[in-house]
Amino acid sequence: MTRVHVPIQLRWGDLDAFGHVNNASMLRLLEEARCRAFFRAEDSDDDIPPTAVFDPEVLGSPTGVVTLIARQSIEYLRPVPYRHRPLDVQLWLGRIGGSSIDVCYEVHSAVGEEERVVYARADAVVVLVDIATGRPVRLTPEMRAAWEPFLEEPVAFTRR
Amino acid sequence: MTRVHVPIQLRWGDLDAFGHVNNASMLRLLEEARCRAFFRAEDSDDDIPPTAVFDPEVLGSPTGVVTLIARQSIEYLRPVPYRHRPLDVQLWLGRIGGSSIDVCYEVHSAVGEEERVVYARADAVVVLVDIATGRPVRLTPEMRAAWEPFLEEPVAFTRR
Amino acid sequence: MTRVHVPIQLRWGDLDAFGHVNNASMLRLLEEARCRAFFRAEDSDDDIPPTAVFDPEVLGSPTGVVTLIARQSIEYLRPVPYRHRPLDVQLWLGRIGGSSIDVCYEVHSAVGEEERVVYARADAVVVLVDIATGRPVRLTPEMRAAWEPFLEEPVAFTRR
Amino acid sequence: MTRVHVPIQLRWGDLDAFGHVNNASMLRLLEEARCRAFFRAEDSDDDIPPTAVFDPEVLGSPTGVVTLIARQSIEYLRPVPYRHRPLDVQLWLGRIGGSSIDVCYEVHSAVGEEERVVYARADAVVVLVDIATGRPVRLTPEMRAAWEPFLEEPVAFTRR
Repeated sequence: MTRVHVPIQLRWGDLDAFGHVNNASMLRLLEEARCRAFFRAEDSDDDIPPTAVFDPEVLGSPTGVVTLIARQSIEYLRPVPYRHRPLDVQLWLGRIGGSSIDVCYEVHSAVGEEERVVYARADAVVVLVDIATGRPVRLTPEMRAAWEPFLEEPVAFTRR
Repeated sequence: MTRVHVPIQLRWGDLDAFGHVNNASMLRLLEEARCRAFFRAEDSDDDIPPTAVFDPEVLGSPTGVVTLIARQSIEYLRPVPYRHRPLDVQLWLGRIGGSSIDVCYEVHSAVGEEERVVYARADAVVVLVDIATGRPVRLTPEMRAAWEPFLEEPVAFTRR
Repeated sequence: MTRVHVPIQLRWGDLDAFGHVNNASMLRLLEEARCRAFFRAEDSDDDIPPTAVFDPEVLGSPTGVVTLIARQSIEYLRPVPYRHRPLDVQLWLGRIGGSSIDVCYEVHSAVGEEERVVYARADAVVVLVDIATGRPVRLTPEMRAAWEPFLEEPVAFTRR
Repeated sequence: MTRVHVPIQLRWGDLDAFGHVNNASMLRLLEEARCRAFFRAEDSDDDIPPTAVFDPEVLGSPTGVVTLIARQSIEYLRPVPYRHRPLDVQLWLGRIGGSSIDVCYEVHSAVGEEERVVYARADAVVVLVDIATGRPVRLTPEMRAAWEPFLEEPVAFTRR
């Protein structure tokens, strides 16, 4: 089990009028976890634990290729309260396809909380697309090799 | 086919750094459509076409009951550009269960555009929950009667 | 007095945990009003009343020039509740400078509400900047001529 | 000079279509810094450095009192890029009034960046309000004593 753990800081502004993290805001948190796991910022080295090899440099950073989200599902298991400690968002791959991957997520309470809780489970189909043509691009052998260690059982939703 | 059509104004701020409406922002648009279709604001009468009978008043507005989203899926069919005319978000019910309903969505380009486009399809499992106990509440016969006209085939996703 | 009136749809998601439109969300509403008043989308013609001549076409749409916000102030006069009818955001110019303008705003309750209320007042210093050099660009005589009809007294803040 | 330093994680979703942190998103970052400096979450102890005594417990946590933002100004000095390391948002008080305080902010690049940069300066008038009556509440001597160490020169804006 090689999951990438990304600490994501909540914001009070993620709450909605019900006083819990809003359902749409939850996708923002997943987006941020995905960005930190998959992409390097100029200063990214120390943020994500060294297990995170979802790395364009490793992948040969194909130019002219973007990633698009084709589909996304999320199951909300319990309301997320505002906390100062960052949530522990865990990512892995549920499938490595021809030109897309399934990114799976579990949103856990902060590392260090007495009681560990899973707040949500989600998955996203991420497609590699050629900017110029708008068409899907096949994953390279380098990508497959780099991503295989993160391949695990797909996320298991409780409903349906 | 009785769908509720809700005009939803885009905001330039819904765009992300790729210049398209962000995938998480899309859930905000669906949320707003759902709020306008299901709930009355003090001034709501003229906003939603008269077909919209998703109405707490009709439903006997059960006190102490809230609606929670248990699960949500969305398929992004093509990028949504910024436009001034409101999107045409269409809602219907894909299932009326014991204590939950499936709200289905299609996000269409604005009424009046030459070319009508479907940008996204989505569904959400909305559960009625008793605030005091936190447990699901059974739909009343009045709710079922009010909602049945909006029952249609569930949303058909292209992928999987 | 030539103000531009821009109808801006609220979203339930603009509310924060206090149940009112969040103070940061208010700037999003102003941003959207500014975008609709100043810029044309492909389909913008009928959205903003014909008084709106803040128009790049009129202005000779200088290429390679962007607008940046250098400073912004906002005074919150009373909490904004969620409503279905769009707010009436009014814009005018408080100053036409060498390479910048002051955009002034008043956020009014919806047209058609019995009681008209001013929720907020704001102003923003918008600077024209050359993308290539990053330096301010002087307003052209065409811009000055187009904008002068919208020149009015600057917004008067209650505090300080 | 006793400033409170609050590390605030950026999100890729804070960027707008220009590829920089959006002007309205900046207020979200300030809001989060304010929440972390002024309020305790159940787990807040280790997040903010021990200098932060803006603490309801210290203040006798007056019940039935909320804080509202009456006015806010922000000056954007340079565009904020997306980074993984948290921004260093610095807060202090520019004024302790009868029933309100001025919270001052400077948004600095992350601690540890080679080049330290000030991205923005801002201030906010925060008023204590009685929920029941909606009227301002006078600061108590305990509040004044707790806040005085953070009193500094008000933020100096470059423009005007």
